[in-house]
Amino acid sequence: MAFSEFRPLDEKSLIEYIKATPSLSSKLGDKFDDLVIKEVGDGNLNFVYIVLGASGSFVIKQALPYIRCIGESWPMTKERAYFEAVALKEHGGLCPEHVPEVYHFDRTMSLIGMRYLEPPHIILRKGLIAGIEYPLLAEHMSEYMAKTLFFTSLLYRSTTEHKRAVAEFCGNLELCRLTEQVVFSDPYKVSEYNRWTSPYLDRDAEAVREDNILKLEVAELKFKFCERAQALIHGDLHTGSVMVTQVSTQVIDPEFAFYAPMGFDIGAFIGNLILAFFAQDGHADQKNDRKAYKEWILKTIEDTWNLFHQKFTALWDKHKDGSGEAYLPAIYNNPELQKLIKDKYMRELFHDTLGFGAAKMIRRIVGVAHVEDFESIKEPSIRADCERRALEVGKTLLKKRREFLSISEVILAIRHVQS
Amino acid sequence: MAFSEFRPLDEKSLIEYIKATPSLSSKLGDKFDDLVIKEVGDGNLNFVYIVLGASGSFVIKQALPYIRCIGESWPMTKERAYFEAVALKEHGGLCPEHVPEVYHFDRTMSLIGMRYLEPPHIILRKGLIAGIEYPLLAEHMSEYMAKTLFFTSLLYRSTTEHKRAVAEFCGNLELCRLTEQVVFSDPYKVSEYNRWTSPYLDRDAEAVREDNILKLEVAELKFKFCERAQALIHGDLHTGSVMVTQVSTQVIDPEFAFYAPMGFDIGAFIGNLILAFFAQDGHADQKNDRKAYKEWILKTIEDTWNLFHQKFTALWDKHKDGSGEAYLPAIYNNPELQKLIKDKYMRELFHDTLGFGAAKMIRRIVGVAHVEDFESIKEPSIRADCERRALEVGKTLLKKRREFLSISEVILAIRHVQS
Repeated sequence: MAFSEFRPLDEKSLIEYIKATPSLSSKLGDKFDDLVIKEVGDGNLNFVYIVLGASGSFVIKQALPYIRCIGESWPMTKERAYFEAVALKEHGGLCPEHVPEVYHFDRTMSLIGMRYLEPPHIILRKGLIAGIEYPLLAEHMSEYMAKTLFFTSLLYRSTTEHKRAVAEFCGNLELCRLTEQVVFSDPYKVSEYNRWTSPYLDRDAEAVREDNILKLEVAELKFKFCERAQALIHGDLHTGSVMVTQVSTQVIDPEFAFYAPMGFDIGAFIGNLILAFFAQDGHADQKNDRKAYKEWILKTIEDTWNLFHQKFTALWDKHKDGSGEAYLPAIYNNPELQKLIKDKYMRELFHDTLGFGAAKMIRRIVGVAHVEDFESIKEPSIRADCERRALEVGKTLLKKRREFLSISEVILAIRHVQS
Repeated sequence: MAFSEFRPLDEKSLIEYIKATPSLSSKLGDKFDDLVIKEVGDGNLNFVYIVLGASGSFVIKQALPYIRCIGESWPMTKERAYFEAVALKEHGGLCPEHVPEVYHFDRTMSLIGMRYLEPPHIILRKGLIAGIEYPLLAEHMSEYMAKTLFFTSLLYRSTTEHKRAVAEFCGNLELCRLTEQVVFSDPYKVSEYNRWTSPYLDRDAEAVREDNILKLEVAELKFKFCERAQALIHGDLHTGSVMVTQVSTQVIDPEFAFYAPMGFDIGAFIGNLILAFFAQDGHADQKNDRKAYKEWILKTIEDTWNLFHQKFTALWDKHKDGSGEAYLPAIYNNPELQKLIKDKYMRELFHDTLGFGAAKMIRRIVGVAHVEDFESIKEPSIRADCERRALEVGKTLLKKRREFLSISEVILAIRHVQS
């Protein structure tokens, strides 16, 4: 078979590959006459093919050794596909209802074959831009985050399992370095990659680069991101990594997965919902002023954290006599102490969440990779006004995160900037 | 050659081994007639032979697959010798003046051949018990800690180098687990391994097990120890891991080395000096009331931290435009920000140091492994009084460490308990 070494696939060679791969061809009932193949990779990094047959379907994702949206000028190991496959399988095992099934992985080809998320599944970010409500979103995302983060942390794992897993994911260092650069560094310095809605935000971008307290705080978060192996995080959990319908929520693209602070995932999701909130004014028109929709986003932010808190601590209670080696039952199982350790842990996790979420917001406004929520606002002056408000909230959350005691106070801060 | 697989050596087979090992036999000028071999392993874990020849000498250290002081009932991987050898070489490269040279390492035999620290080198702990002053101790130990910790941290390393090293040392997990158990867990629960000067300290040991705030704080430290890969630490830097003369200070036995919080090393050393301080009353006699010596210990504690702070921040200044990726020059090189980040980093490191140092003190009084400083006090009631004062300081430092702003305040707290 002709795939003993890596080669980028096109639609023609992809069919050869599928025919030669039982775990894929069987999904199509080994019928190839009426195959429909569409390349749909609209992400920043990879090539994605949808393969539809009469009796089955799947998605093929292939990583190329560079960053697609920038090109061969920014090389990026295709080994990321390996870590994505491992993370999909591990998170899928912990939360199968919200992670697509992996049918096939080929490390040589950096290729993953997985469930095709059929219509009406769309990328959440596009739904948020379109003003579509997803009544189960907070419920589903809090479930996904609570399970994937709790079960890969020392609250559930032995330190032996933990160190073995940490060692393996240290191999995903190139993707970690990309995050370190584009989230924690570039937005705070002059960089060829940075961009913003100019000239409107020129002073705002400069203010970010000159804010010592902001830079002091983002340094603390960068250290935590690099040094603290708290749980196996998705690593890129923005609203473009989630596919949704009214009844289904599926988390995709965990190629940045490694052991890092939980707050980086929770913050990424909540931070991108805040960006979606501030983008709404740019999408409002006579038919729809988006006021009700903005309320739904705020409620979804509040519910996401509160439900996460509830589900995460419930898992903790359920497994407090289990294999987790952080708090041994013989030491920590008295009610008063249980409350003390939980309150302390969840308070710190909340502040991490706000800090990382804020860093993810800021970088989407003055860094290299922007979000369609704002980019799709045609009129630059309107877009800049939306972005400026989001930036203000991001800076407040990053610098003052320890002063926030509950998610409802965060909602108030958002409303305050909005009004 | 007969050593293709592991076997514990005795004095006879050791000679065969040396003859068959050029890197060792050459040290003896290949003369074996007049060899003198002494087994001197007085540590808790390994067998140590001193090999003296007419024209050279060295030490052979062999790890056996269990903990020597407890026996085969407590198995412990002999792979620890590998991590010890790697750490000796890495720390030795960074601070050759205070780390013995490694001549030979044999992974199969879990055997290290290294420089023999000739008389009058003795174990620091024994010198402290004997009441001997070492005028260069603070200078040397602060130098060792500043260099080994700074150069293996993200203040000097790239995140790529860092993750590769972290991944390798995750393999030393059995030794980490031993620390987790005996330092952070057993002293806070009923354990078959715990012991204390009974009946005198029965209530004190019980009080440790029933102190919720103490247990809350030690849990935070355990998390940091397990999750935070800050630098390549020695991992067991008490006064029994240091050999000294009036002019030489040599750090040995880094078999617990791995990537963890810097404060665990600094705290181990300072905490054991505090134990030595409180043991002095048990060693005082008509000839020597030890009052002057106690002052020297307090000064050494104060100098150790202050000199470490000075040397560490000096290395930071010297390399602030270097390869370290924690604080990129393009973002952090303005004088005001430099001061902010240093003050913040060193304040947190100081509090980590007090917390970990306190945990190491407490475990030596109510845990499995005690220190000769106290054990050598024959009269139990006197020993208990010394231990009780040390325990009080340990509890205070662990619970209130964030309230201490300088090492001189720590000295005052020690004097307060003493008087």
